[in-house]
This record gives sequence, structure tokens and C-alpha cells, in this order.
Amino acid sequence: MKRPAGSRGEYAKTAQRRQDILRTAVEVFTERGYEASSFREIAARVGMSETGVAFHFGGKAALLAAVLEIRGEQDAARWGGGGVIAPDRLTELVAHNAGQPGMVQLFTKLAAEGTSKNSRAHPFFTDRYDKIRRGTADHVRASQRDGRTRADLDPDLVAQVLIAVMDGLQVQWLYDESLDMAAAMDLLLSTWLPPHTPGPVTA
Amino acid sequence: MKRPAGSRGEYAKTAQRRQDILRTAVEVFTERGYEASSFREIAARVGMSETGVAFHFGGKAALLAAVLEIRGEQDAARWGGGGVIAPDRLTELVAHNAGQPGMVQLFTKLAAEGTSKNSRAHPFFTDRYDKIRRGTADHVRASQRDGRTRADLDPDLVAQVLIAVMDGLQVQWLYDESLDMAAAMDLLLSTWLPPHTPGPVTA
Repeated sequence: MKRPAGSRGEYAKTAQRRQDILRTAVEVFTERGYEASSFREIAARVGMSETGVAFHFGGKAALLAAVLEIRGEQDAARWGGGGVIAPDRLTELVAHNAGQPGMVQLFTKLAAEGTSKNSRAHPFFTDRYDKIRRGTADHVRASQRDGRTRADLDPDLVAQVLIAVMDGLQVQWLYDESLDMAAAMDLLLSTWLPPHTPGPVTA
Repeated sequence: MKRPAGSRGEYAKTAQRRQDILRTAVEVFTERGYEASSFREIAARVGMSETGVAFHFGGKAALLAAVLEIRGEQDAARWGGGGVIAPDRLTELVAHNAGQPGMVQLFTKLAAEGTSKNSRAHPFFTDRYDKIRRGTADHVRASQRDGRTRADLDPDLVAQVLIAVMDGLQVQWLYDESLDMAAAMDLLLSTWLPPHTPGPVTA
């Protein structure tokens, strides 16, 4: 039961190796999309045999699952509330995303591929859209109660539109990085402010 | 120089063959995206040899070009103005698209893949977004002059948001066809109507 000498070094090496593999998987998935990426190419780029990579991650699907899980954890850590973002922080999110075009491109491609029911990414994105749509609608309702958003708008439709604008602006921006996503998002949010009602406000 | 007997029959057969190939290419591209589609699979599904398909369309890239060209022609024929759609017809466009999920999915996938600069679809979508953004902004300006849209909104940003919402709603809808894209689009457009100003209007 003696711990082998250098096991701490081995552990660090394994962790480093896993990180290298994941970073390379993100790189290849981002370039080619998931379907057209090959486990062989990922292994070749990271400088390992396919068997070597398979020791750490069983296959391409396991790599995708790990990438999605990490992203989910990062979102939850950054934005709280399970990664669901309040509308008044969406401009902040847009600015954050503008600093990581690779991740934006990867998610744009995976979300598109995932629309096929037999895609590996399908269950993840089905769940993700469902969750953020419901969570965003809750935020909108709270914002309407507080008088920060027009009360006459259907909160579920507002949530759909907000998420659609995020996704759609990112596609346009990936084609033309001179576009100001934050300004477009601000315009949208500003039009949903309550009108300035000059009459008395009932308590 | 004698015209061979049955040349009209041959011509019709060739046209039919080309249509079968294109329909199959759309089917395979829609399932797998462009990158992960193989010329071999398209040929196998249409029941021809690869050489046979290559006689009609030189390769996978030629098939993609033909699909994009046909779609461009259909859009221009349906919507006029080079396929650029006035904002007040966007709900009609959404309803039309809801009737052809395959085409919506194909374009969602191709637009995502095309964000890579080395993608075959990149030049097409770069040009497409640029054109529809400029054309839509022109429509918005006209609509502002006519008093149908709030005059205080930046028409270029409004165009970006409109196109983003179209694209983004389609992604969500491909995951959940119970979503009412037309209602979400209507909500957006309704919030951009000019406010009812009760004061006198200056001529």
C-alpha cells in the first residue's frame, strides 16, 4: 500500500494532459463543428496516439460532454442562478462574449448541429434553451413587477426574443466583428422600458 | 449536325436527374451539415456512382453552390427587392419558414459553419448578411419617414436586431416546434411602433 514515488507529479501530469486534450478538442470542434471533427485529428494535434487520448476521454462524444460540462460550470460560476442571466445584465454578457470569439463560434456551431434530433449535442441544447427560456421569463416577470420593464409585454415571448437576439447577433458578429452587439442589445432593452407616464402612480 | 433522336427525352431525363441529385444533397446537408456530408453518401442515396453525380455537379462544393443559388432565386422571386424583406412582412416570412423546417435547419447549419473563414459557405453568408442588413436598414428608414416606426431608433441597429431575432427564433423553434415565432416577432415589431403622441403634430 506504499504510495508510489512521484505520484503527485503523475497526478499533475495527468491533469495537464487532460487540459491539453480538452483545449485541442475545443480548437478542432470550433474549426470544423462536432460532426466533421475526428478523434484522430484531435489526437494528432495534441501529439498523442488515439489510444492515449482514449485513456483520458473514451471518445469524441466524451470530449464533447466534457466541453459542454465545463462551459455550463463556468456560466453558472460567472452569472449565478444556474447560468440564467437577468435581462439588465445581457449587455454585460454580450461584452464578455465579444472577448471570446472562439467560444461563441463553438456554441453557434454546436447549437446549429444540435437541431438534428440524432445529434450528440441535441439533448444538451434542448435542455439549455428550455432552462434559459424559463429562467429569463422569470427575470422578466420580476422586472415587470419592479416597473423596470413594460408590464404589457408577454414575459415568455420577451424571453424568446431576448435569447434569439443574443444568438442571432453573435452569428452576424462572427461574420463582421465591426458590429456593435452591445449597442444593438441596448437598443432592444431600451424600447422595453416602461413609458414615462406623467399621471399619478397608484400605490 | 443532325440532332440525335430522342434528345428532348434525354434533356428531360438530365433535368430530372439533376433535380434528384439536388434534392438529395439538400437532404444530406440538412442532416449532417456541409462539412460532415460526403459526396459518396449523396451519390449512394440518389442511386448513382460518384462519377455519375460528378458529371452533373463537379463535387460537393458545386452542389452547395447550386443549393445556395436556387435558394437565392426563390427568395428574390418570393419577396422581391433582391430577397430583402420589409419589416412589416417579417411575420409573413416567419409563417412561411415555419412551413419548411428542413430549409430552415439547412440554413441554420450552413450559416453556423460559414462563420469559419475557410468554409465554403463563408463568402455566401458574408455577402448575404451584409446585403440584407443594408436593405433592411433602408426599409426601416423608409418606415420611419412614413411614421410607421419610432423615429428615435438607429435604423442600422434596428436592422441588426430584426435579422438576429429571425435567426435566433428559428434556432429555438428547431428545438421546440411548439414555440410561436410569429407571436414573438409581432411583439418585437409592436414595441417599435411610434408612441401615441396626444399633442398637435407639426406639419
